[in-house]
Amino acid sequence: MSIGSQLHCKFEVPEIIFGRGLLSQVGSCARRLGGKKVFLVSDQGLFNAGWVDRVMKSLLDADLSFVFYDQVTSNPKDFEIEQGAKEYIANGADVIVGLGGGSAMDAAKGIAILVSNGGNICAYAGNDKIHRPLPPLVLCPTTCGTGSDVSQFVVVNNTQERCKLTIMSRCVAPDISLTDPDTLLTLPDEYVGTTAMDALTHAVEAFFSVASSTLTDVNALRALRLLSNSLADAVQERRPEDMETLARASLHAGMAFSNSLLGIGHALSHPIGGLYDANHGSVNAALLPEVLLYDFPVVTDKIAEMARAMGFQAVNDLGGAKEMAYETIMEMLEVAGAPNSLRELGVRKEDLPLLAQRAIKDICVMTSPRETDEEDLLALLQRAF
Amino acid sequence: MSIGSQLHCKFEVPEIIFGRGLLSQVGSCARRLGGKKVFLVSDQGLFNAGWVDRVMKSLLDADLSFVFYDQVTSNPKDFEIEQGAKEYIANGADVIVGLGGGSAMDAAKGIAILVSNGGNICAYAGNDKIHRPLPPLVLCPTTCGTGSDVSQFVVVNNTQERCKLTIMSRCVAPDISLTDPDTLLTLPDEYVGTTAMDALTHAVEAFFSVASSTLTDVNALRALRLLSNSLADAVQERRPEDMETLARASLHAGMAFSNSLLGIGHALSHPIGGLYDANHGSVNAALLPEVLLYDFPVVTDKIAEMARAMGFQAVNDLGGAKEMAYETIMEMLEVAGAPNSLRELGVRKEDLPLLAQRAIKDICVMTSPRETDEEDLLALLQRAF
Repeated sequence: MSIGSQLHCKFEVPEIIFGRGLLSQVGSCARRLGGKKVFLVSDQGLFNAGWVDRVMKSLLDADLSFVFYDQVTSNPKDFEIEQGAKEYIANGADVIVGLGGGSAMDAAKGIAILVSNGGNICAYAGNDKIHRPLPPLVLCPTTCGTGSDVSQFVVVNNTQERCKLTIMSRCVAPDISLTDPDTLLTLPDEYVGTTAMDALTHAVEAFFSVASSTLTDVNALRALRLLSNSLADAVQERRPEDMETLARASLHAGMAFSNSLLGIGHALSHPIGGLYDANHGSVNAALLPEVLLYDFPVVTDKIAEMARAMGFQAVNDLGGAKEMAYETIMEMLEVAGAPNSLRELGVRKEDLPLLAQRAIKDICVMTSPRETDEEDLLALLQRAF
Repeated sequence: MSIGSQLHCKFEVPEIIFGRGLLSQVGSCARRLGGKKVFLVSDQGLFNAGWVDRVMKSLLDADLSFVFYDQVTSNPKDFEIEQGAKEYIANGADVIVGLGGGSAMDAAKGIAILVSNGGNICAYAGNDKIHRPLPPLVLCPTTCGTGSDVSQFVVVNNTQERCKLTIMSRCVAPDISLTDPDTLLTLPDEYVGTTAMDALTHAVEAFFSVASSTLTDVNALRALRLLSNSLADAVQERRPEDMETLARASLHAGMAFSNSLLGIGHALSHPIGGLYDANHGSVNAALLPEVLLYDFPVVTDKIAEMARAMGFQAVNDLGGAKEMAYETIMEMLEVAGAPNSLRELGVRKEDLPLLAQRAIKDICVMTSPRETDEEDLLALLQRAF
């Protein structure tokens, strides 16, 4: 089955549970999957905000014991995952719960890979290199981006090469994705914007992907609609209902891109994240305007629908739709605090050729709607610089 | 988690594979699930059309042996399922493939329940009464209605009581839903219309359900859009691309209703199907106009979106949207050959009180957007009579 065929499509998502207050159900989920001793992966910020305690209580309520692992930083590093796997095995855990943003969840997935497949995490980069089934996995996102809680991807930082590797396999999707949007209430302001920009980029790239289908489109479009309706309010007022809408947008975007994959935006953002340990959502945001302009000429038939999802009401006005779609996304990026250039994120001009060289090998290039090459990617980086 | 809460929602679908020609992949799917000997459930019509042979070839290509079971009729009967389970066990099968419409697929699911849980199939009616895991299950729909290939339901005809029972459990959803829309090319004309009316009713009732969420809405709305765009062409011209669109509409509608459940349309259609062995899609179609008129007053906030999905372009015109939605659905029913009344389907006036009495106990009443009672249901039956 060709990945790019419009006619053949696949759609696979974990069991999804979504609702305010549902963190109290994590224990019963882990128990239902057959777990007795939980390896709980999270980070210090969530511990300080009290959410880790909430999960621990839920685990105890379900008569589960647990080990807590918080040695995870942003853009999760190979050695953090390898250390986590050692601790999982040493403690005799049998189910993994990941609570956090993309970093904690990707670390949890990486640990799951290693405890059943062994070896070094970087060896699993690429498509379908995992052969033994993973332990049961429950992922609970606490940001409004990432999509790792539903996706078939793990992004890991290879610290020796200073590059991000993408592991892609149907078996890294968790058993259960559980979103409690209340966890967003303590998310630091800057992360609301940066992770929402990640969700926005997922929705756009998933919708344009050559592997998109109606099964993914409906989710990408709903994400765009929810973001365009609520992002400004969410960033400015942070009411619980706005945060819930952002969490829902992130979930829809994740369901879309996990099945349609992405495009050159993410192909470029992975090496940048790897080289500078830069914030993933911010890098995506700095690239998105140029990605839109690059892709627009080849996705003409999709632009009207995209604009309509974001509230455009005129009929048969493709020029107006294109302008509206671009402007609406620009406004969202601004509201979310997007950087104006890659330079602002610490990218160095002399590294651009290396970044283009790495990006063209990224798995996300495969589903770019516009055929691309290293030269085009370098030119795009220069424009976004 | 309350089933009717707008805030807490769940979404669970099997792995979905969709595309023309993909029946050749059934064998590799069954093999991937760990099967060695397949119990293939289908019917004589599909055997005669050559599709069963196609699946058998795919099983042999994947080095799987199989037993073929075709003792399935429409509105599958308890004894057909019980006989199938005996043959599965006698033949030492270890994976089930269901190929057909709702009847063959529900029979396959029923057999899966019995071979691992024992007893009589009617004993599993209701919510969550299945305690032992089912054998691996691949379902391949060959009509454009039903949704059984993705749903958490089995509808069985209790032949002693002449009533349809609904079994609801997350574990009856198959492992893989594989749609090859080419199978629709040999579907007899009348079934194109009747099964498409079933998909239409699923989409409407799922969208209005109190357990709907954005996760189900996006699928219900896409089903409505695809049906309103393609039903007339599909029925009249039957081009492969139209049939593919209908199959896709049915899939989206199935993904929606399996998670949001349905409403009084299905609550009423189950006892009618049970008492008269009547065509499920036709019964739904005969009821749908009255169901719409009954539900419209309580789903005002959803009508504009529903009309928009079907092509309504005016803004802020709720009256127009309601009229357009109703008229568009009426046109689709007419094109699909819907009966004008229950009477045409052999329903007897003196049975209406019994039907209302059975309908009010149906599980689908739980998610009706409008609170209902036996009296209201009887009045609705009389109007549709």
